[in-house]
Amino acid sequence: MATITSRKEDYSKWYNELVIKADMAENSGVRGCMVIKPYGFAIWEKMQRQLDQMFKDTGHENAYFPLFIPKSYLSKEADHVEGFAKECAVVTHYRLKNSENGNGVIVDPEAKLEEELIVRPTSETIIWNTYKNWVKSYRDLPILINQWANVVRWEMRTRLFLRTSEFLWQEGHTAHANEKEAIEEAERMLEVYADFVENFMGVPVIKGVKSPSERFAGAIETYCIEAMMQDGKALQAGTSHFLGQNFAKAFDVKYQSKEGKQEFVWATSWGVSTRLIGALIMSHSDDNGLVLPPNIAPIQVVIIPIHRTDEQLDAISKIAKDLKIELNKLGISVKFDNRTEYKPGWKFNEYELKGVPVRVTIGPKDLENNQVEIARRDTLEKSLVNIEGLSVYITELLQEIQNSIFKKAKERMNSLITPVDTYEDFKKVLDEKGGFVSAHWDGSIEVEEKIKAETKATIRCIPFDAVEENGVCIYSGNPSKKRVLFARAY
Amino acid sequence: MATITSRKEDYSKWYNELVIKADMAENSGVRGCMVIKPYGFAIWEKMQRQLDQMFKDTGHENAYFPLFIPKSYLSKEADHVEGFAKECAVVTHYRLKNSENGNGVIVDPEAKLEEELIVRPTSETIIWNTYKNWVKSYRDLPILINQWANVVRWEMRTRLFLRTSEFLWQEGHTAHANEKEAIEEAERMLEVYADFVENFMGVPVIKGVKSPSERFAGAIETYCIEAMMQDGKALQAGTSHFLGQNFAKAFDVKYQSKEGKQEFVWATSWGVSTRLIGALIMSHSDDNGLVLPPNIAPIQVVIIPIHRTDEQLDAISKIAKDLKIELNKLGISVKFDNRTEYKPGWKFNEYELKGVPVRVTIGPKDLENNQVEIARRDTLEKSLVNIEGLSVYITELLQEIQNSIFKKAKERMNSLITPVDTYEDFKKVLDEKGGFVSAHWDGSIEVEEKIKAETKATIRCIPFDAVEENGVCIYSGNPSKKRVLFARAY
Repeated sequence: MATITSRKEDYSKWYNELVIKADMAENSGVRGCMVIKPYGFAIWEKMQRQLDQMFKDTGHENAYFPLFIPKSYLSKEADHVEGFAKECAVVTHYRLKNSENGNGVIVDPEAKLEEELIVRPTSETIIWNTYKNWVKSYRDLPILINQWANVVRWEMRTRLFLRTSEFLWQEGHTAHANEKEAIEEAERMLEVYADFVENFMGVPVIKGVKSPSERFAGAIETYCIEAMMQDGKALQAGTSHFLGQNFAKAFDVKYQSKEGKQEFVWATSWGVSTRLIGALIMSHSDDNGLVLPPNIAPIQVVIIPIHRTDEQLDAISKIAKDLKIELNKLGISVKFDNRTEYKPGWKFNEYELKGVPVRVTIGPKDLENNQVEIARRDTLEKSLVNIEGLSVYITELLQEIQNSIFKKAKERMNSLITPVDTYEDFKKVLDEKGGFVSAHWDGSIEVEEKIKAETKATIRCIPFDAVEENGVCIYSGNPSKKRVLFARAY
Repeated sequence: MATITSRKEDYSKWYNELVIKADMAENSGVRGCMVIKPYGFAIWEKMQRQLDQMFKDTGHENAYFPLFIPKSYLSKEADHVEGFAKECAVVTHYRLKNSENGNGVIVDPEAKLEEELIVRPTSETIIWNTYKNWVKSYRDLPILINQWANVVRWEMRTRLFLRTSEFLWQEGHTAHANEKEAIEEAERMLEVYADFVENFMGVPVIKGVKSPSERFAGAIETYCIEAMMQDGKALQAGTSHFLGQNFAKAFDVKYQSKEGKQEFVWATSWGVSTRLIGALIMSHSDDNGLVLPPNIAPIQVVIIPIHRTDEQLDAISKIAKDLKIELNKLGISVKFDNRTEYKPGWKFNEYELKGVPVRVTIGPKDLENNQVEIARRDTLEKSLVNIEGLSVYITELLQEIQNSIFKKAKERMNSLITPVDTYEDFKKVLDEKGGFVSAHWDGSIEVEEKIKAETKATIRCIPFDAVEENGVCIYSGNPSKKRVLFARAY
């Protein structure tokens, strides 16, 4: 039986063990790269399908751009190269079939590339180099494109889902005729992310903007959603960037306006990644294993028979199969685990570990009483429910669990937002309680850096809903108009 | 107006122009890598969704394995390394953020990897290195996994979709307790591919096995489906490999059988790629542009209004929108192109170029007569149809077009299978007619190689349905029991 370290004992170890034991992912033979196992990938597929529909509903189309980026592209946008050139995998050589190049000349079995290629850490540069040829007139705008892809950012310290050298993500890249439209797009996509993360993943977030030093490399403004994990550390769940005309200027992407003038195009980009699975796990799960919100659970209902005789199993199977068909019709995914090589107790633990939201147990006594036992994973509560109307009951229960998981996480997050007015209190809260610390900051990079160096806390975001108030920076004592949220973060 | 070179004039140029002008894909700034544009990618998405469902219906789950493969893994299976090590992109260096390694030691901004990494050309080696830890007992088998991924095979001569250095594909990798089950799996997946390619893409195929020299590197048997393009050249549309115990032995993957014995695991792998889009284009399209089978068309029906006044457009719009809603309910994708900046004639050409199966034109006269004009893309036939019952008419027409496109391609393929009994006739047919040449072959690699060197024709497959007959090899005169299919191929 798989048992895992408790959160209290060692939160970090709990997470690592849970990912492995719930069969979500594992480390591969390639340093820093993970294998996403079928159960973990099924969650990613559900996330993908939902997000993809939301992107399409907001007018976006998918496309695919190359994995490799010529090194020179990366250097064209000054801030961007500063941010990304230092965490890359570099392709320097290629090998050719028949050791022959395009001109029929025999080449070395391993030949050096004329220009080194970077494995994409993000695709702004290769995409804007492409958009250059797509945009001539205002009629060609907006371009609203998303890409599902793998990206590589070389990392020395990696953790499954949270930080891996290769990860899966989507990246939207849009081009617009004016600033207003681009800003609206960046804000719209942040709302899409917040909607998805809160309503599908059940993870509450705070929406806001990043401080200048935490912005995406090459962005004018980075909008973000920040989530709070059970251990009081924050996790950036999604970002949407207003890129201004930076990439248009770097790649010379101009359009002719209605008035006949040549103008640079305005840009956004936005992305979420398999990192979200880490946020999902750390938001809801407990010492028994995963707790999955029904909207994202690959198996929403598991039915487990308890029987001593074959006749009993036959009778239970009939009910189970009818229930499965009924639930499937309602769009609910059901597993009937009638394997005889595993005992019910083993199965209970297994599906608890895997976070299946609802467990239906049917035993011989239940048959007599025309009832089943229902256990919900989030609260571990059990109840006996009449077979009559069971599918309606389960449908409503799944919705109730979805709401309840979010509510619980939201209450926890709210309890982990602490306003402080002095640097002493700031440090004390960070060390004793964790969570978001809401404090006045004078807006200077120097203060931000000093606080980070001294406490490891960074500014997670300047919340959209921050109220204007007169305050003084907890560090410098300089005047400040708004509180920002600091936290230690993943 | 986009006009394209005719097939007769220059088939190859026709293809290249069509891919560009129909907005399917284009070359990127990275040599040999393509950009798949939204319209081309929408076709790939439809293919993916259908195939993915078919894989799941046959018991498979998706997972994700690393992009990078340590060089040493590739060498573990002798035939495999021979086939793949020579067309790879090699990652030799990495760069680190903060120029700091895991131990806080400052490293070079660009550091050499201890072991070079290959960008996956196919994933057998990394996957079997993983399966090693997943398989202990017969209870862990079978493993039925599929992966959607990008792969890289370095190519000097590339063509959009048909041969690119990076391409998208799916690769199934399964592990079984015995030989029989593995062979059945390889055969089952070939049937899935044939079903998909014929019934969804409308492309007829011949099912068979590859000759030993055309097998996948590391396979015991390669099953394949071969398609025939309009220019008489063959195209391999999908392959499924029975890998025997080759990879299990290379990576030491054993299981304990029910009887308690340690046995090597049996394997299959199977894949199709974005190359299929090339086959789709070259099978059905004509000098006016793409011809897409309705099952795979991103837009199945386009509605174009013809009007002089705003009142006319309003009246037409009402009918168009009602029709769109009705068709959408039936699962049919519809575009109502009411843009006023483009003339109807321009739109006709545009959607012909893009292969939209059904065009509905509504003009003021049609309103008076309570009818619309329907044009089908495959035959270019037009007819006037009463608005009453229009959605049923269109639903049936789409099915009729799907069937008709397949039938036409099937007749063409059948007309391009020519049995010959002498090498003279063989060469004559290849040069004058093209297509599959059905000929006796003595089974020797030497003859196969000589024929290839002299005629550029390869053995495309030994068809499953080849009849046993006594014959003599067209080249050596040695006895032969079966005809095989030769062709020049993409």
